[in-house]
Amino acid sequence: MTNSRVEIILHESDLLKGNFLGDPYTRRVGVYLPPGYDSAKRYPSAYLLSGFTGRGTMMLNETAWGENIQQRLDRLIATGEIQPLIVVLPDCFTRYGGSQYINSEGTGQYEDYFIQELVPYIDAHYATIAARERRGVAGKSSGGYGAMIFGMRHPETFGAIACHSGDMHFDLCYRPDFIPFLRSIDKYGGVENFIATFQDVHPKKGDFNSILSTVGYAACYSPNPASAWGFDIPFNAETGEWNDAVWARWLAWDPIELIPQYGDALRSLQLLFLDCGLRDEFNLQFGARTMAARLERAGIPFRHEEFDDGHFDIQYRYDVSLKAMSDIWK
Amino acid sequence: MTNSRVEIILHESDLLKGNFLGDPYTRRVGVYLPPGYDSAKRYPSAYLLSGFTGRGTMMLNETAWGENIQQRLDRLIATGEIQPLIVVLPDCFTRYGGSQYINSEGTGQYEDYFIQELVPYIDAHYATIAARERRGVAGKSSGGYGAMIFGMRHPETFGAIACHSGDMHFDLCYRPDFIPFLRSIDKYGGVENFIATFQDVHPKKGDFNSILSTVGYAACYSPNPASAWGFDIPFNAETGEWNDAVWARWLAWDPIELIPQYGDALRSLQLLFLDCGLRDEFNLQFGARTMAARLERAGIPFRHEEFDDGHFDIQYRYDVSLKAMSDIWK
Amino acid sequence: MTNSRVEIILHESDLLKGNFLGDPYTRRVGVYLPPGYDSAKRYPSAYLLSGFTGRGTMMLNETAWGENIQQRLDRLIATGEIQPLIVVLPDCFTRYGGSQYINSEGTGQYEDYFIQELVPYIDAHYATIAARERRGVAGKSSGGYGAMIFGMRHPETFGAIACHSGDMHFDLCYRPDFIPFLRSIDKYGGVENFIATFQDVHPKKGDFNSILSTVGYAACYSPNPASAWGFDIPFNAETGEWNDAVWARWLAWDPIELIPQYGDALRSLQLLFLDCGLRDEFNLQFGARTMAARLERAGIPFRHEEFDDGHFDIQYRYDVSLKAMSDIWK
Amino acid sequence: MTNSRVEIILHESDLLKGNFLGDPYTRRVGVYLPPGYDSAKRYPSAYLLSGFTGRGTMMLNETAWGENIQQRLDRLIATGEIQPLIVVLPDCFTRYGGSQYINSEGTGQYEDYFIQELVPYIDAHYATIAARERRGVAGKSSGGYGAMIFGMRHPETFGAIACHSGDMHFDLCYRPDFIPFLRSIDKYGGVENFIATFQDVHPKKGDFNSILSTVGYAACYSPNPASAWGFDIPFNAETGEWNDAVWARWLAWDPIELIPQYGDALRSLQLLFLDCGLRDEFNLQFGARTMAARLERAGIPFRHEEFDDGHFDIQYRYDVSLKAMSDIWK
Repeated sequence: MTNSRVEIILHESDLLKGNFLGDPYTRRVGVYLPPGYDSAKRYPSAYLLSGFTGRGTMMLNETAWGENIQQRLDRLIATGEIQPLIVVLPDCFTRYGGSQYINSEGTGQYEDYFIQELVPYIDAHYATIAARERRGVAGKSSGGYGAMIFGMRHPETFGAIACHSGDMHFDLCYRPDFIPFLRSIDKYGGVENFIATFQDVHPKKGDFNSILSTVGYAACYSPNPASAWGFDIPFNAETGEWNDAVWARWLAWDPIELIPQYGDALRSLQLLFLDCGLRDEFNLQFGARTMAARLERAGIPFRHEEFDDGHFDIQYRYDVSLKAMSDIWK
Repeated sequence: MTNSRVEIILHESDLLKGNFLGDPYTRRVGVYLPPGYDSAKRYPSAYLLSGFTGRGTMMLNETAWGENIQQRLDRLIATGEIQPLIVVLPDCFTRYGGSQYINSEGTGQYEDYFIQELVPYIDAHYATIAARERRGVAGKSSGGYGAMIFGMRHPETFGAIACHSGDMHFDLCYRPDFIPFLRSIDKYGGVENFIATFQDVHPKKGDFNSILSTVGYAACYSPNPASAWGFDIPFNAETGEWNDAVWARWLAWDPIELIPQYGDALRSLQLLFLDCGLRDEFNLQFGARTMAARLERAGIPFRHEEFDDGHFDIQYRYDVSLKAMSDIWK
Repeated sequence: MTNSRVEIILHESDLLKGNFLGDPYTRRVGVYLPPGYDSAKRYPSAYLLSGFTGRGTMMLNETAWGENIQQRLDRLIATGEIQPLIVVLPDCFTRYGGSQYINSEGTGQYEDYFIQELVPYIDAHYATIAARERRGVAGKSSGGYGAMIFGMRHPETFGAIACHSGDMHFDLCYRPDFIPFLRSIDKYGGVENFIATFQDVHPKKGDFNSILSTVGYAACYSPNPASAWGFDIPFNAETGEWNDAVWARWLAWDPIELIPQYGDALRSLQLLFLDCGLRDEFNLQFGARTMAARLERAGIPFRHEEFDDGHFDIQYRYDVSLKAMSDIWK
Repeated sequence: MTNSRVEIILHESDLLKGNFLGDPYTRRVGVYLPPGYDSAKRYPSAYLLSGFTGRGTMMLNETAWGENIQQRLDRLIATGEIQPLIVVLPDCFTRYGGSQYINSEGTGQYEDYFIQELVPYIDAHYATIAARERRGVAGKSSGGYGAMIFGMRHPETFGAIACHSGDMHFDLCYRPDFIPFLRSIDKYGGVENFIATFQDVHPKKGDFNSILSTVGYAACYSPNPASAWGFDIPFNAETGEWNDAVWARWLAWDPIELIPQYGDALRSLQLLFLDCGLRDEFNLQFGARTMAARLERAGIPFRHEEFDDGHFDIQYRYDVSLKAMSDIWK
């Protein structure tokens, strides 16, 4: 039997042409084809969404002790924990670090690109079972967020979702970053200068990340193409005065607030899996708990787990979620 | 001329009898009498409010290199920076660390105690000029908050206030503590156990302080004597779900929200001084900036300063505020 | 029966006159006299040594929830855990924060002052039993170090010592400070400028303390009155190159190295007590363990305890050590 | 002209067979061949050594904003900053994270493998100029250390070396890790259990890294194949007591101590380049300064630079060192 292989394809998008941030409209997408892949057969497919500052192909990076995604999938298939799958590694990166997999005037039409262009392309070129009942989406962090949003907004495309440590309960996961933003933005010469120069800043750590995240999420959730920055932020960058109107635009994208709106979609899923580390550095365990409590109240089936770890280097949780998907696809 | 002296008096309160937390109703109050104090003369008086976890007499503590309040006042008077004053060091401590100088069913009637009992007692027993035009109140942190609240609610008592690094803009100064509260409350066996045992916890640092502060402020701002804890908190202690109704009770005490309500009082003050360190660990510089911006918009005179320091060990700022008071009392 | 009282005496030293740092030669010393103190009776006496940046009278400071030393002693005597004692609170502070209770050309003759002037003065003016069998010394941190050194060098004066979290194993407790010193000294304008201006630096925290401690200990352990700074440090302040000769001067004062030299003295003690918190921020638990291991090997009796806490706010450990002293004095 | 390409070769070593840690003796080595590579021509070659926990091929990993090594080399060649080179990405990883590129009974014969097997293999299979005058070695962190060691011990192989933030002045770069080791080793069940289970520990951060580094370096510098762990550490893991004999074995590998021994070799180099970030998290700036000071005193030519950054994400410094090599190879 042939080994697994990963094809890196260059996928040109029409919908991303002319995107606001000037990011590329041709994207490198990884496609994992399982051992013994036979284009005459048909396979379920799973899309793995990378987190903020990530591209799908970065899941192929080599690490000191861990597996990259190809090694992981090979092992899971070899041991029979999952059946042979086609796994897609999309690229929805932006110059600020990520699109949250949604459409935004401040970034680009990433949701449409994904659903209308990428999925059909994969189905057209690979031996997938092109049906929601055999198509899943999973991700971590902002990728987990994307999976949750797709489960809500595109149940016609994905019948199974897995959200690992996904962005939700924005008051607890995003808002704490606004404090280091306020405390440090002067050090970077203000927002306008930060935007222009952040790629050359060294080192990219600590408060830098709080500012970059805030910028990146604002471009997604509260774009303002007519403004100098291209987005609004939910507070005054000098005094910290709160802007409820802008924050309301963010909250309109907070999964814990969207259950009423997308209840039917969530209820229709074959798998709604969410988990989080007990010591998540972005407090996402509380978001997951809140989500679980509200799903429970709404009578929507789901599976919620907690594990003893933080936010980083938790790719091993895919072992759990991919098995859960594979099990329902048997 | 005689030296200055500090009298430590035991002041019995009627209003604090039967207070909810069972704290003492007899309080040790420090009274600084300036060098050459002559009860036949009359002096302006200033009340210095200690911060959370403090009592007024702790300002008399000896430190390695700094001055205690007696040494500081002696120096300021000796150099002529301020005129001879009577300075009062009140005790509004509670078992959770402080009363915020307000009335609360969850702590006691500290505002009433202060205005109706303590000030009259001082005027009756010491050679003060018993008039708002010669009576001021200053404080740091929760003491600065108390000064601001007294300026708003008791301009008939205090004509001059100085708020150093005072609690305000609760979204920025208190809310960040809710995260460590959530992350660590289990370590202390839950809220009920924390309340029962916190005095014996060692060491009292880090997340401990975030929990204690939250408990202490909740007892002041959102008391609920009928409940198991005696107060409500603005979030679910397990999931972090936000409780807008409880938070609204806190915000009803946030100085930046109270300007419309107390505009006339603030406008009537002879001195409305606020300052904050540029690197305040509790983000109070943003609160002060927001306050200043809103006072400005409301056409209320004030003096706002920033200094290059954090939140702690900034007693030297009293040199500035006491001089400002003394100047208007000449 | 009369209450306990604390007398604050002004004690003039001859030996401290002309000390290198120009520190005062008249010191404020606290003397605790137990409830019912009767000068016709005779009492054991204990000297409590404050840590670096402390003076004995600072043990009288009021704290939020804890006891000051007077309250603590009152309670211990009232419950019968200890017998009535005279407790002395000496002042061996220097402009850099402390003398380590030793003689040094770079600070002053603090060891001689203590043994030759202070102890005789106390015995002459208070109802002590003036004998090593009824005289003890205890302290925390640098005060614990002082107690250990006195136990080694002055067993004729002290028959019982208690060393709480005392400085020892200098490689582990002092050397880590040299790294922040190296990393930050430039920020303070170099050593010479630091020495000249440190008292006015705000805030005094973080790396500041590492530098101040290094300066302070160097003045004690490796004085060099002829040099610009008045002391040598065991590394090059720019490159970090190590200076074994200077470090050897420090190690000549490290208690774990002094057991062979002072074995007979240590063996003669009625009580040799040492303890440390398991999470001591200065790694002193390892020093205490090393000390215990070496005392064991040398056949010297001692009592060693560990407790679950850090380095700060551990005055409650005096309950244990004072009881241990009191027990042997029965 | 053809594009650059990277060949990943499987290189089998004889010398690594039966290595102590049971690590693979067949290694994946990356070989960068420049644009227009023509095996009929001859090119200088540079070996890039990865740091601790790294393998050469990890330099090919994709990052959010940065370049991987192929992109970097392409750019440097395209702009003419460097001439076309063959660049080799070796793998000297061990189960503990790295071999320091030296022979050790506790790891394997990595120095010999590198010099006797890898370099000849590359010269035999690629169009290199097989002479020290056109062969260089550069690296970062432990890779910088390796470059420095090769410059000292194998000037016959490498005429140019570049050491970025390389391990040196072990007292400042390694010794600080021993403190968190001591404080946390119990949490991991002791050294023996740590060794057996560390690969499964989550998360791998904070004190974990201090312990792993200590274990890894000890296996290199103070192996003890006969012992339970396979190595000795320079301190008692319970009390922290120092072991001078073991530490001396480490210092025998500290570059700042080796100048007298390898002065002629260092003097013979065409390029001896070292640099470090001013805020290096491992204090390596002081090591580099000490090295520079001692090279200066020994009259050995070198180039020393400092840059305003920390230890991580500083691959951009290869732009400087590769240009320096390329310049001397013109």
